Amino acid sequence: MGDCGRTRVAANGGDTLREPTIIGIREASERIKQLIHRTPVLTCDTLNRICDAELHFKCENFQKTGSFKIRGATNAVLSLSEEEASRGVATHSSGNHAAALALAARWRGIRAYVVMPENAPAVKREAVGGCGGEIIYCKPTLKAREEELAKVLERTGAVFVPPYNDYRVIAGQGTAALELCEEVRDFDVVMAPVGGGGLLSGTAIAARSLSPATKVYGAEPEQADDAFRSFRAGRIVPADNPNTIADGLRTSLGELTFPIIQKYIADIVTVREEAIKQAMRLIWERMKIIVEPSAAVPLGAVLTKRGEVPGKRIGIILSGGNVDLTRLPFG
Amino acid sequence: MGDCGRTRVAANGGDTLREPTIIGIREASERIKQLIHRTPVLTCDTLNRICDAELHFKCENFQKTGSFKIRGATNAVLSLSEEEASRGVATHSSGNHAAALALAARWRGIRAYVVMPENAPAVKREAVGGCGGEIIYCKPTLKAREEELAKVLERTGAVFVPPYNDYRVIAGQGTAALELCEEVRDFDVVMAPVGGGGLLSGTAIAARSLSPATKVYGAEPEQADDAFRSFRAGRIVPADNPNTIADGLRTSLGELTFPIIQKYIADIVTVREEAIKQAMRLIWERMKIIVEPSAAVPLGAVLTKRGEVPGKRIGIILSGGNVDLTRLPFG
Repeated sequence: MGDCGRTRVAANGGDTLREPTIIGIREASERIKQLIHRTPVLTCDTLNRICDAELHFKCENFQKTGSFKIRGATNAVLSLSEEEASRGVATHSSGNHAAALALAARWRGIRAYVVMPENAPAVKREAVGGCGGEIIYCKPTLKAREEELAKVLERTGAVFVPPYNDYRVIAGQGTAALELCEEVRDFDVVMAPVGGGGLLSGTAIAARSLSPATKVYGAEPEQADDAFRSFRAGRIVPADNPNTIADGLRTSLGELTFPIIQKYIADIVTVREEAIKQAMRLIWERMKIIVEPSAAVPLGAVLTKRGEVPGKRIGIILSGGNVDLTRLPFG
Repeated sequence: MGDCGRTRVAANGGDTLREPTIIGIREASERIKQLIHRTPVLTCDTLNRICDAELHFKCENFQKTGSFKIRGATNAVLSLSEEEASRGVATHSSGNHAAALALAARWRGIRAYVVMPENAPAVKREAVGGCGGEIIYCKPTLKAREEELAKVLERTGAVFVPPYNDYRVIAGQGTAALELCEEVRDFDVVMAPVGGGGLLSGTAIAARSLSPATKVYGAEPEQADDAFRSFRAGRIVPADNPNTIADGLRTSLGELTFPIIQKYIADIVTVREEAIKQAMRLIWERMKIIVEPSAAVPLGAVLTKRGEVPGKRIGIILSGGNVDLTRLPFG
């Protein structure tokens, strides 16, 4: 792995072959910090009162491109050699990773090709185009995405940057929890939503390394509960026709994220659709900030497990804030 | 005026008879600062790019009770003598001032009676009740409100704390601009929405006193343009059947706020409904924060006058974030 032209390429955090450690996450943080926002950690008296707990929200909805995904994408793009970078990058994504990769590529001055399902929300399509990404549409199935991506890689020679199943991406996503745990100490619990597991695995490595007594939980929609089932089965059980308002969490765990989750996670908590909507509404109405449904799932988990949280200090990654304002779930 | 039991009562800022100066606003700030939030000042790269200006948003949507109104209400309530306080406070309000007065009264441990139109949004009714205020409903006309309030004052002996036409309230509202101008220096322009003029007059005193070269503008819905017409006529011209989505700005200037506005304001800018909605949507989508329509009017004014703003440093008071999520204007 060569020099990326902007920053030192580290043996970890920019490494495609080795599972990241806290050292790699710190290196990723150094690599990306000039480009991304250090997002605020907010609290809300009303939510603390409702939950009888001390909640600290890491606001990645305020992050560049509106989600944490820019962390992993930027770490991956800045970790490429000059030769790799010259060929551009490519991915398939339902949205947030796509916009993130497009922006990270623009920052490095290289091309980004994005295979995206034709039914992706308009706001997410515009985000990719607005960052200069080249969109290639496909049918909304994992198979169609993978086939279309293979064609793009074949045609362009671009480097594939996966949405989550990539150690550079995982190290980048872990930088949000690194910042959170540097700012607030001694969490009893840290929670992140889980789709493909990139955010959750990075969060777990960071939080458990900085504070071994902290328990890290994944929060998952009950209607896309592949991580819950995989965690219990001890093997990856892919999602079966997931159907949830939390559109960022319909993906299944990958072979790189699952072992990290097995190693570091206390449990996966599933959340019903109504609790996700209730949590989203509470965050909008009480905190006056906009989060997407996926970001509300951890608070939904806290509300679901309310009997177990009193008195606890809980850190929550609010993963993103990209919603289509014309299609909101408030009845 | 006696001692309020919690803090020193000053000759200014807690004075019902004299127009507040920056000294009075500073005193109000000292009086209320332990109870209210010092709200953040946010910027947004995208909005700066769209406007080709440097915008700084003072986020009173994150304030206690979800709007700046808690500043004036708290200053007024803490300025009461023990004897006055023992009788409780009362007001009529379409919402934000009502919740604010109820909470300020609770903080001082006294009763609050609120006369409110029966068609006030549910979210605002619940806010008043949730803060322990006693609601008395009336028909949605100014006349009905005033008559009902007179009955309440007669019955209870409570002290009337007006929503805006009160020097203690004006001094309190000015503390938001005081914080803004302490945090960011040398504004070319500071803008606030104008309804009854409490926020705008307090903002003008604070901003012009701290930075005499700064121009202060009021931003007003075109469909509730009494301040615009009053400013030009040189006398109060009450609103004639105002009909705007900016429900906090349907009120007309008062005899205390108008002279301050005449003295300190550069101009009133009127904003069409479409521009208010566009500005609100930009703030929601780009800043990922929730503001009510009234709070979006100054950005609507900036967008309307886009030819005049390039290169300018502009401070905007985002006045509040209380919206009914089931009735949003995003088509």
